[in-house]
Parts: sequence; C-alpha cells; structure tokens
Amino acid sequence: MEHPLDRVFNPRSVAVIGASEVPGKAAERRTRSLIEGEYEGDIYLINPKRSELFGRKAYPSIAAVEKKVDLVMIVVAPRFLVSAVKESVTMGAKGIIIITAGLGESGEEGKKIEAQILAEAAKTGACVIGPNCSGMFSASGNINLLGVPRLQKGSVSVLAQSGNVIDSLTHYAGVRGAGFSKIISLGNAIGVSFPDYIEYLKDDPDTKAIMVYLEGIKDGNKLIRVAMDTAKEKPVIALKVGRSTAGARAAASHTGSLAGDELIVDAAFRQAGIVRVTNVDELFDVAHTFSSCPLPRGNRVAILSEGGGDNSIAADNAESHGMEVPVLSKATQERMEPFLLEGMPASNPIDYGGTAEENPHMITECVKVCLEDDQVDGVYITGFFGGFKDIIAPHVAELEEQTSRELVDLVRTKQKPVFVHTSFAREHITSLDILKDGGIPVFESSERTARCLSALMKFSLNRKKFKTMPLLGTKGKEHPEVKSLFKKATDEKRNSLLENESRELLKNYGMVLPEAELARSPEEAAEGAVRIGFPVAMKVISPDILHKSDAGGVKLNIADRKAAAGAFEEILANASKVTAKERVMGVMLLPMVPKGRECIAGMIRDRQFGPVIMFGLGGIFVEVLKDVSFRVAPLREQDIDEMIHEIKGYKLLTEIRGEKAKDIGAVGDILARLSDIAVDNPEIREIDLNPVIVHEKGASIVDSRIILAGW
Amino acid sequence: MEHPLDRVFNPRSVAVIGASEVPGKAAERRTRSLIEGEYEGDIYLINPKRSELFGRKAYPSIAAVEKKVDLVMIVVAPRFLVSAVKESVTMGAKGIIIITAGLGESGEEGKKIEAQILAEAAKTGACVIGPNCSGMFSASGNINLLGVPRLQKGSVSVLAQSGNVIDSLTHYAGVRGAGFSKIISLGNAIGVSFPDYIEYLKDDPDTKAIMVYLEGIKDGNKLIRVAMDTAKEKPVIALKVGRSTAGARAAASHTGSLAGDELIVDAAFRQAGIVRVTNVDELFDVAHTFSSCPLPRGNRVAILSEGGGDNSIAADNAESHGMEVPVLSKATQERMEPFLLEGMPASNPIDYGGTAEENPHMITECVKVCLEDDQVDGVYITGFFGGFKDIIAPHVAELEEQTSRELVDLVRTKQKPVFVHTSFAREHITSLDILKDGGIPVFESSERTARCLSALMKFSLNRKKFKTMPLLGTKGKEHPEVKSLFKKATDEKRNSLLENESRELLKNYGMVLPEAELARSPEEAAEGAVRIGFPVAMKVISPDILHKSDAGGVKLNIADRKAAAGAFEEILANASKVTAKERVMGVMLLPMVPKGRECIAGMIRDRQFGPVIMFGLGGIFVEVLKDVSFRVAPLREQDIDEMIHEIKGYKLLTEIRGEKAKDIGAVGDILARLSDIAVDNPEIREIDLNPVIVHEKGASIVDSRIILAGW
Repeated sequence: MEHPLDRVFNPRSVAVIGASEVPGKAAERRTRSLIEGEYEGDIYLINPKRSELFGRKAYPSIAAVEKKVDLVMIVVAPRFLVSAVKESVTMGAKGIIIITAGLGESGEEGKKIEAQILAEAAKTGACVIGPNCSGMFSASGNINLLGVPRLQKGSVSVLAQSGNVIDSLTHYAGVRGAGFSKIISLGNAIGVSFPDYIEYLKDDPDTKAIMVYLEGIKDGNKLIRVAMDTAKEKPVIALKVGRSTAGARAAASHTGSLAGDELIVDAAFRQAGIVRVTNVDELFDVAHTFSSCPLPRGNRVAILSEGGGDNSIAADNAESHGMEVPVLSKATQERMEPFLLEGMPASNPIDYGGTAEENPHMITECVKVCLEDDQVDGVYITGFFGGFKDIIAPHVAELEEQTSRELVDLVRTKQKPVFVHTSFAREHITSLDILKDGGIPVFESSERTARCLSALMKFSLNRKKFKTMPLLGTKGKEHPEVKSLFKKATDEKRNSLLENESRELLKNYGMVLPEAELARSPEEAAEGAVRIGFPVAMKVISPDILHKSDAGGVKLNIADRKAAAGAFEEILANASKVTAKERVMGVMLLPMVPKGRECIAGMIRDRQFGPVIMFGLGGIFVEVLKDVSFRVAPLREQDIDEMIHEIKGYKLLTEIRGEKAKDIGAVGDILARLSDIAVDNPEIREIDLNPVIVHEKGASIVDSRIILAGW
Repeated sequence: MEHPLDRVFNPRSVAVIGASEVPGKAAERRTRSLIEGEYEGDIYLINPKRSELFGRKAYPSIAAVEKKVDLVMIVVAPRFLVSAVKESVTMGAKGIIIITAGLGESGEEGKKIEAQILAEAAKTGACVIGPNCSGMFSASGNINLLGVPRLQKGSVSVLAQSGNVIDSLTHYAGVRGAGFSKIISLGNAIGVSFPDYIEYLKDDPDTKAIMVYLEGIKDGNKLIRVAMDTAKEKPVIALKVGRSTAGARAAASHTGSLAGDELIVDAAFRQAGIVRVTNVDELFDVAHTFSSCPLPRGNRVAILSEGGGDNSIAADNAESHGMEVPVLSKATQERMEPFLLEGMPASNPIDYGGTAEENPHMITECVKVCLEDDQVDGVYITGFFGGFKDIIAPHVAELEEQTSRELVDLVRTKQKPVFVHTSFAREHITSLDILKDGGIPVFESSERTARCLSALMKFSLNRKKFKTMPLLGTKGKEHPEVKSLFKKATDEKRNSLLENESRELLKNYGMVLPEAELARSPEEAAEGAVRIGFPVAMKVISPDILHKSDAGGVKLNIADRKAAAGAFEEILANASKVTAKERVMGVMLLPMVPKGRECIAGMIRDRQFGPVIMFGLGGIFVEVLKDVSFRVAPLREQDIDEMIHEIKGYKLLTEIRGEKAKDIGAVGDILARLSDIAVDNPEIREIDLNPVIVHEKGASIVDSRIILAGW
C-alpha cells in the first residue's frame, strides 16, 4: 500500500504557488533549485501577476493548471494561505509544503489560520508540511525544494524544525563531499510531525540514518515509541535545543516551541536509543558515520598510533565516551610484536613508533591483527596518517595510498569499523580520500573520532537489546473497580483519591501492601490493632487532610489496645481543628514497617512525553541531591533495570556498611505496575509512593498519594 | 640579571652533536630546520664520520669547535650521551637539548645515564632539556630545532612532553595561519621542568598565552604555585592525559610518567586557574583565542544570528560552558529594535532575521548596541557570516567585507571580545580573513566558539580574584612541642600519633577541641567524668589499637560515676584481648558531642602535589557518593570557600528540613589550620578528622588520626 508520504517524496508533478524571479527571495531560491535540479515531473509556477517565469508559462492560479498536481509548495502572505490550500486540495494535492512564516509562532491570528489550513487538508487527507518551514529535498524523487543548490545524493535523511540548521548541514555536506537521502524542514509542524516522518524513514530503504533537529517536542510519547522501534533498524541522531533557559527562550520565539524538563528529555531519548548530540557539526559527523561504516558488535576498541602522546589522548577520549580499551590477549600481542620496534607496547594502545612513517604498510599489518581478534570490535588509528609524505619524503605518498586501499579492504572483509584521526584531515590528500570513499571516517579531532565511533558502538549494543525487549504487558485487563474509584472521587468533587482508595487501586494492579483497617471509633481502633498486631501505625483519612503528619494525623508505634483507642481520639481531635467531623472518614491502622532503605517511586504525566515513571532514594537523596531516574511508560524490563542502577546512590541498595543487599526485584515490580497503571488510566495525573521501604526481602509502600487529572 | 633560559631561547651559537644528512632521520630534520630557518648565530655540525654536512664543515667532536657554544642539541645513541654532555659543558654550553630516546622511560639502565648527565650539567649549571624530546623553537632567537619547517612567529608558547603533540599543534597552526613564540618539547624532563618553564614564560613579554601538554606531573606543588602566579598575568592552558586507565597505560609506556588521582589533578588545576582542555585541537584554539582577543570583564554574552535555530544552539552552548545569556535591558532592546524586523526578539539571543543577509551592516549596528551595554561582556555571532554572498548574490561579498572591517574596529574601540561561528569558517573567504586578521576568532563549530569565549571569561574573572588573594599565613611560628611529638613517636617506633597526641598537635595549631582527660584507673575515670560532666564518651588509647570501636574500645553516653568506672574496666578487658597491658596508655574521657551535621576533613600527602586538603560530608556521603573536595596546600581563603561550596551535599550545611544552617566559618577555620599543619610538618603523611560534627555554632572534632611519613 502506498504511504501518504510516498507521493510527497516522489511527486509526479509539483506546483509552486507564489513562484518568483526576484533574486534572493525565498520563493525564487526554491523555484530555482527545483527547476535547475534533476526533477523530471511536471512543474507549474503560479503567480497571478506574471505570465512567464524562468522562461516558463506562469499560471494565474493553481486552479488554472490543466492536470492534477501531486505536490504544492506555497510561498504567499498568510492571508492568502487558506484559499491556496483549498485550491491545492481541489487539484488533488497529496502534499502541501507551506514556506510562509508568521503563523502560529507569531500569535493567535496565525494559529487560527493554521487550524483552517488543517481543516481544508483533512478533507482529502493531504499531508501538510510546515508552515514556517524551508522546504524539502528527496534524492529518490530527484526533487530539491530547499533553495540550496547542488545537493548530492546520499543515505542520510534529515528532519529539522529550523531552516538554518538545514542550511548548515547541507553546507557541511558540500564542504565534505557528502549527500542526503531526504530532507524535510518541519517548521511549525502542524500537520505531519516528527514521529510520522521517523516512522516513514524507518522503512525507507534509501535511508541508513536519520538526523533530527528539534526545538520542542509535541506528542513525545509517540516519538519515543517510534524511535524505539526505529532503533532496531537504523539510528536516530537528535539535536534537541532548549537545554538552557536562554536556549529555551530562543526556541520559543523561533517556532513557538516550549522546552521541557531537560532531565526527562534526556532520559526519554536514552530510553528510546536516540543518539543525542548538542551541535550541528556533531549531528552531521555522527550521522554520516552510520551511513558508511559496518556496525561493530561491541564497544571494545584498539588504538594505534605512531606517537605515544596521541595514543594517550585517544585512550582518554575513548574511555570518557564509554568505550573499553582492553589490554589485548597475549596471543594477539605476540602476533603484533614482529611489526613493532623492540620494547614498544603492543598491549593497547599500540605504539608502532616512527617506523610507520617510512613504511605505512606496517599499519595494515597491525590493524589486521586487531580486527582478527574476537575481543576487538573496532580500530581507532590516531596521529598523522596522510601526512607521512610531508614528514618524511614525497615517495611515501604512494605507500600511504597503498595502505589506505589495504585498510579499506580490511574493513570490507572483516566487517568491523576502522576510524582515522589525523592532523591532516582538512587537507585534500589522496590517501585520505581513498579512506573516505572506502567508508573509513577521517577526522581532524580525536574527540570527534571517539564520539562517532562510540555512537556506532552504543547504537549497535542497543539494537541488539531492543530487538528482544518487549514492552511490559499493559491494557490487557479491564479494571472496572479502579474506574469506579475515579467516578466516586469526581462525584465528590475530589482531585485526589483517599489513601484507602489509593491502596485499593494499587492492590488492584497486584501491588503488595501491608494489611490495613479503617477504624471509625476508638473501639474499632483497638479491635483492629489487635487483628493487625502491635505495634501499629495510625493515620487520619480525610479528603481535606493531604499532609497528615503536619496536621497531627499520624501516630506511630502504638503498643496496645488502650494506646490505640487513645490515639484514635487524639487524631480525631487534631483533625477537627482543620475540617468538619463528617469530612473525616476514619483512621487507618497499619502494621509498623520494619527497617529498610527509604525510596520513592511515582508517576507524573509530562506535558511532552505523557506518563513518566520516577524512582529514587528518599529523604535527603531526593530533596538535596535530586537523585532520581525517569523513564517514559510503558516500560520495558531493561528500562526498569536501568532506572534502578543509574541513581547515584544505587550502592545503598546493595550490601554496604554491614547491611545486606535490598530486594531490587521488589522495586522493579512496583515500577512495572506503576507503568501499567499509568498507561491504563489517563484519569491519573500523578502517583506518589513515598516512602517505599525496601527490605532484604520485599518492599513496603508506606504512603501513597494519587492525584487525578483534569484539575 | 640573565635568566638561565635566556641563552637557551636566544643562543649566539648552536652545535648539533650527531648531525645527519640521511633524509627523514630525526637528526636530519632538525639540522635542516635549523639551517634553513632564520637563525643568525654560528652553527656547528658534529659528526665524526663526516667532514662535511649540508655543504658545511663538519666537526669530529664538539671539543674541536673553535669557540664557546651556547646551545647544544644531542642526537646520539644512549651510550655516547654522557661524554657528549661532558664535552658540551666544557665548551661552555648553557643549554643541552637531548633528543635521544630509550633513557629513563625504558628502564634502570637509562635512569643511570640520566643521573650521570645531570651530574655533569650541574658542574656549570647548564640547563638540560629532554632527553626523549623533540627539540625547541624560539621566535625571539630565530631558531628552529624542531624539525618542522616553516614555523610562523606568534605570541603563544608551547610546553609539551610529547613530540607528536607538538607536531599536531604546529600543523594546526600551519593550516590556520597562526604562529608561536616559544616551543619546548620536555620529553623525560630530567633537568628543566614544567614549573621552571612556566615561571620563565610568565615574565616573557613575547608570550601572551602558555599551552601545556602533560603526561605526568612531577613537583606538582611547585607547578600549582607557579601556575597560580602566572594566572595573574596570562593564561596557562593545559592538556593532561591519563584520565583513563588506558590513557595512563599509554602515558606510562611513553615518557614513563605515572598518572595521579584524576580528582586531585582536576581540583589542583582549577585551584591554580589553569584552563584545562582534553584535546589538542581544543588546546590550540583556546590558546590562540587568548593571543588575539581583548579580555572581557565578566561572563555575560549577547548572542546574535540571522537564524533562530543557531541562536538556540549557541545559547545552550553558552550556558553549558558557564556563561550567562542575560535578557538585555529595556534600554538596550529599544536601541536595537530599529535594526530588527518587526516582532523579532531583541531580548537575547537576538534574531536579526533574513535581512542581514542582504544588508550585513545591520550586524555592525546590533553588535555596537550590545558592546555599549555595560551588562554585556562579549558578543557571540552565529550563523552564516561570510557566506551571505553565496546565499544571496555575489555583490554582497563587498558588504560583508565592509561589515568585517567595522566589527574589527568595534572590538578595538570597545575592548570587548567578539566571536564568530559560521558554517563557512573552513573556506578562504575575504570577509572572514579580515575578521581573523583583526583579532576576531572565527570557528566552524558553535560548541568550540562557546568553549573558547568562556575560557577567556573564566580566566579574566580568575585573574581579578587571584590578584587580591594571598596564601593563608604559614611557616610563621615554630612549633617545638609538635616536633617533640614526632620525636617521641619515632623513638617508640610508632607510625602514628596516639589520639591524645593528635589532639595536642591540633590544639597547638589553634583548633578548638572538646576538653578531655586521660584516665589510668577506674577511679580516675569516675573523677574525670565528673569534671567533664555527664554524659561522657570513653575511648581506649593504645598504639596497637587503631580501630577503637571494632576492638570494643569505645563506650558512649556514660551517665554516672559508677558507669564510668565500669566502662573503664570493660574497655581495658577488651583491650587486653588484642595487646599487652603496658601498651594501653589509658582511657580518654570526653564530653558527648551535641547533634549536628557529620563531616570529614583531612590531609593527604599526594605523590604529585604534596599536601592536599580534603573536605566532605561524612557517612554514606563519603563512602557511597565520594562527595569530597580537594585543594593543594597552602590554601587561600577562596580555596576554602570553594571546597565547602562545591560538594554535592553542600545544601545540607544550609538551612534545610527544619534544621538551622551550620557554622561554615568553623569548618573553614579547621581547613585553614589543616593547611598550616600540612605545610609546616612534612613529617605528617596523613591527617583524618572523622567525624567532625558541625553545629549551628562551632564544630566538634570527635576523632582524629595522624599518620607519620616515612613508613
């Protein structure tokens, strides 16, 4: 079946409404790049003031075109937009690209126009791209509507909210001789959005890697799901701005995007296997690495150089980017030694000393030994390759070129990546061109080399994991009892559940909670306490008392019947100071929880990502150190495992200071069930389990608070 | 007075022992760069096997030279080194550069030769550079002994342990058209060391910035002192490898350097105002920024661009590098608005939209408004400057060049730095060349732009602070009582002080400790406890019992006379299980310490930096989170302030969770006195005050342990 975007990227005909010949204008540049490119379909230029443009017939309106039109690019003032879209839809447009700015990002008036545009497009299901965007390029469609001349074809696709980021990327590509598969400028993205495009590109055989530039995130939950799926096939590399307050300010004024909580964005991206970068040049380099290199199986790298200084720097870079630089096996070292000077280390990093400069072939030999070692996943050559001829003598050039060819062959036969860092990377040197053309990335910066190689390795490891990682089961069972709790609260105009209701909800999802009873009199309190077993804890239950301790509504370590009855009366007396008697549902009796590690777990419904699950150590750890981890629900088992392990205080859950290890499985169980609850029940805005006391076996949810949405 | 290095960098005559004509050899390249360079003094080539080299007379030995020789470069096999040095010294050499490798870094044999070389040089005080180094360049001396042809003169000097890092730096400079003042390859640095060179370059009028590449640190304390002093004048930018285990491995095999504790290295560098970088290209860029730009007064930056995407990225980069991107004052925004399109933000970042591309002069106007605002310390232009002519039309080139001239003028008259990030930075474009020649750095990477500008700002702020920041008073007073404690311990063959001795030492340096008494019998314990006041704590004192609690040697909360006497007997009974009776000096009685925040303070004598003071929160904070800060002693007030504030749990010393703020002044006092003790008493290897309980007023040192050196 044809995907709606197929026709957008491969249109049989294109119309430009607002086509222009005035040099430097947005419409002129895009019309020119269309006409002067390789596009083979029909082109219709629309401009009521002109009968001819670029030596072609100009139409007064799209309605005047004789045939149906697949794709329309519109560059007219905002007030003409709605009718232009309407006419385009009538003419059968499958895609409408709106370059015009000054819409939703400028205020209410623009937002109204955007809504009308969407309504018109919805009539036939036409895709709307933009507005406030800079156009589109498609290698498969031979079409260039970006206004950037001379774009080469390649296997990396670009999705970007900002036009000038696309300008930067295409410029970098020009300087470096690289190309693109598809480029879309999303602008305000009122129609087709990031997840839609990513989903499409996931299955696009012409796209090996997807670059994404985002200012804000709409529909983040879908984005994460789609990215997760995509990460099983190909990488999504994303630059998301707005990390800083000034960055968020700039993004807001640019495409009207609002930045989200940076901690959650970061966690969500990691969860989805999105490779996150912070700059455009890094975005470009990382993505193009993926388009040319074989994927490594792991993250173990061998580092080789003719100089010890470069080796040290490369090793520091490699480890700080999460790669391992293992000591090579004795067998591999022995195979390597014949090629090295006596006494030079073969352990890794490997120093082949100054002799490689005269005899570069030695590099091939050393790299071959490394690539044939099962414990090496990739090779990182650092130093001056390509410049040996300058350092030693011109005749070395030929030897370097031969070595380049050998290295390219090695990568092809061994199917492991080799990366080259060299001070000569910026120059046009034949030996380096051979490497680049043969799929060996060449960088001037050692840091960038490590960054790109590590991205490849991390993606590869994620891909393996993601392939066998189902989402935890959700939406399986109906929970009518839970829905009736929401109804009751809503009927009673409450924005939160009472603690006994919260407990009921949690139990309904299989959480284990200490037995409890609700007492309505001193006698019931005494009786109930006996059944639960002393010592007990007692807590007031009232919709008006959220902070129970502050209101004198909690008594701990109640040791006997008499004390229980007395505590009941005291709690009620305290409660009566803040609310009416009939607003107190009673006092809850609970067993005292044995000692353990204090944690918190919870759920918040994030503006961008929807349900987000949180975990952390309690007390000062959360209050002072903000030591919490986040993941977007629904969770996978791996997510839970990472959430627990990535908190700074994780060690406190292990055996430490004479205390036995805590039951991490019980924590994981709580997080999994929170995920289920969050996905099943959009009625809930926030869940707060605080504290959760984690024991050597099991965990006790001491207090739970559930806030409802719509308040 | 002439500095010993003056003659090294400006020699009147140079001899090369081991000069060679064999292409590509180390000796040949260096001899050639000397001869083909601008050197105007006498050159003597020494090679017993040749009568002529490079068309010049060759001498059989340096002794055969007719005149005295200022500087000698030696490139002979290790076994000939000692006699070569001996002869050089005899010939009056002030400096001896030893290129030869395979010395100390290769083993004991090499270390012996190094010692002999030093002994020969010491006879006349000649400076030894290397061995295992790659040579020297001096712009003032017109001399190039690096073997790298065509080095330009500039105002940045380089000190590097690795030869290939120097090759990288000189290559970068060549590609970018930049130059150097002095370059020294230190190699094994057995003679002149890093602090010596830095001290010299501090006062060198030709050097504006100092680049340092280190593999290991010898004499770190001196390095920190010298760098601190230098930071009052000019920046020291350092790349120190060995952060990773593999990096340390590579460095160790390269120059025999051992890496130190990374946390301490990092803290020491920050303390000294050293700008730390992690890669060679970054080292180069940061240092050259200093050589061309006026110093900003603060860290507030205005960001300008023709595109919103670039602005967002730049703002994120700026803040993540510690710069402020303040909202500009209303007055400044009003001055700016006439130059901007309607509705474009002037708040900062500033978006001058697409119109600058046709009319670049607008950029000058906007930059001028920013630079004239007292609340702006620098300007960061991002986007496509230099490429407007490509984007719009060729005639714009001239307008861009005019704008470049205007910007250069603005920097000169306003004396604030302007940085440019542009996608076109790699191309040779006249408008960009005008900027670079006029002292406006131009980068292809937005991240690098932020990195360099922030380095300038941080250095400037440090410089201001450092100028008025004396070291805390030390070495003022003699402490004979303290020295006698060491003597007693040594006489008794103890490697640590007893706790009563530790207390005496601390008190001698003005630390406030709770009153204590040493009881030698149950009766004395009861009497003493009365004097101190109940409840008391009791601790065993014995050289054989270091971990008192584990040995049952501590009793807390002793409430009355009888209990005190009983506790004494119990403690002694426990002690007798691990040591002889006569090895127990008694039981110390102390008041119970009121509650407060548990901290630790201490001193360790680091292999690289000497005395290092440590501070942190106690308990799990130090054990699990490693939440400690370090500074090299002697401290300055600022150091103490930073040590206390930079721990992650700092907030726990402030008002939090209903507890009042703790006495940070008392903590600072302890750290200052620890610094004094550490500097005065090299006999001490380690001091451990753990715990120190910090109260709302004052702090109690509950336990102290002092370990002596030489064990």
